[in-house]
Amino acid sequence: MYVTVNAAMSSDGKLSSRRRDQVAISGPEDFARVDRLRADSDAVLVGVGTVLADDPSLTVKDADLVATRQQRGDPPHPARVVADSRARTPTDAAVLDDRAETYVLVSEAAPADRRDALEAAGAGVHPIVAGGTRVDLPGAFDTVEAAGIERLMVEGGGEVIFSLFEAGLVDELSVFVGPLVIGGRESPTLADGAGFPDQFPALVLEDVERLDDGVVLSWVVDEP
Amino acid sequence: MYVTVNAAMSSDGKLSSRRRDQVAISGPEDFARVDRLRADSDAVLVGVGTVLADDPSLTVKDADLVATRQQRGDPPHPARVVADSRARTPTDAAVLDDRAETYVLVSEAAPADRRDALEAAGAGVHPIVAGGTRVDLPGAFDTVEAAGIERLMVEGGGEVIFSLFEAGLVDELSVFVGPLVIGGRESPTLADGAGFPDQFPALVLEDVERLDDGVVLSWVVDEP
Repeated sequence: MYVTVNAAMSSDGKLSSRRRDQVAISGPEDFARVDRLRADSDAVLVGVGTVLADDPSLTVKDADLVATRQQRGDPPHPARVVADSRARTPTDAAVLDDRAETYVLVSEAAPADRRDALEAAGAGVHPIVAGGTRVDLPGAFDTVEAAGIERLMVEGGGEVIFSLFEAGLVDELSVFVGPLVIGGRESPTLADGAGFPDQFPALVLEDVERLDDGVVLSWVVDEP
Repeated sequence: MYVTVNAAMSSDGKLSSRRRDQVAISGPEDFARVDRLRADSDAVLVGVGTVLADDPSLTVKDADLVATRQQRGDPPHPARVVADSRARTPTDAAVLDDRAETYVLVSEAAPADRRDALEAAGAGVHPIVAGGTRVDLPGAFDTVEAAGIERLMVEGGGEVIFSLFEAGLVDELSVFVGPLVIGGRESPTLADGAGFPDQFPALVLEDVERLDDGVVLSWVVDEP
């Protein structure tokens, strides 16, 4: 499975403010770029924090891109994947609607009633249990890949992005850097988690593209 | 006074690891660029956290750049400015050596013995007292400017950079973005502090330059 992480951050590396409000970092050109990335993916993954904060649907917005997917025999929208160790995804979350298949990656520590609720949430909702107290991402990814997902796009947040780098599962990182300063030692950043103490994952800068009022940096992970 | 902030951050906006170790983010081309920026400045400012963590001398490294400064009648190195509310700069810090003048910006809350120690640290060391418990940066900057400093370069860390943006004192922001992921919700970022809750300072992207294995983003503050 080929994994591309995509995010928009401020000039100082923040995904949102200390209040965790959604902040307008990019603009229409970057939205269109992200929509194309989604349309080229078999699935889009987010962490449950992003579901709880923003309730995204993760569907393709542009009708032409949807039509192109269908012409080539793909479903109209990529599947959704939620990394959700404790099964906190609300049953009325937009990612559980019937517009696409959804995989919810939970751990064995997820309460039974929450797992049951996800099972019952819809015909296209598939809980995948992997790992004890935190979801075992490599194990869960094997299951997702076995379901036919070859190209996975990750849309954040910073906790799941760090976990994926820590597990060595990332192939590419695309970052829109936007024209603002958010600041804050507690504001969410592109890669949160515990952080690497040393042996930092190395990247190779593949492309630099000015877009909207910022720039997209396209990195490839060196030996993912 | 024209204020340029310069920093090197990882692809995810970190200045160093959660251990606050120095991390090699840029390379020789960026070191040369930073040296030229220093040589073009009347003074270089850092926060006391950077002095305590890295003990930098903040002098110009390239002999030709030093010679050029002297040919135009400037001192060999720019002055050093340390933002140091509680006067924690050690008297044997490299920034207090006699290679350049040094201004230490302290608040009235700085212990008297520490202020006395700075006064006694050398002929070129000038404590400037401004503000009650934290240094009043606009007030202290007026004093620094009155001493003849017109072009001030800021080399971090993230706490002082945020404070300067908060006080509306930044004109330019140059950021080298390097080819690695550091991660960590507690790792130092380009702009820490409390963070802006909203009304984020807006930037204009002036230039994008690939350098070493990364990229330098040059932003100008919109209405500083």
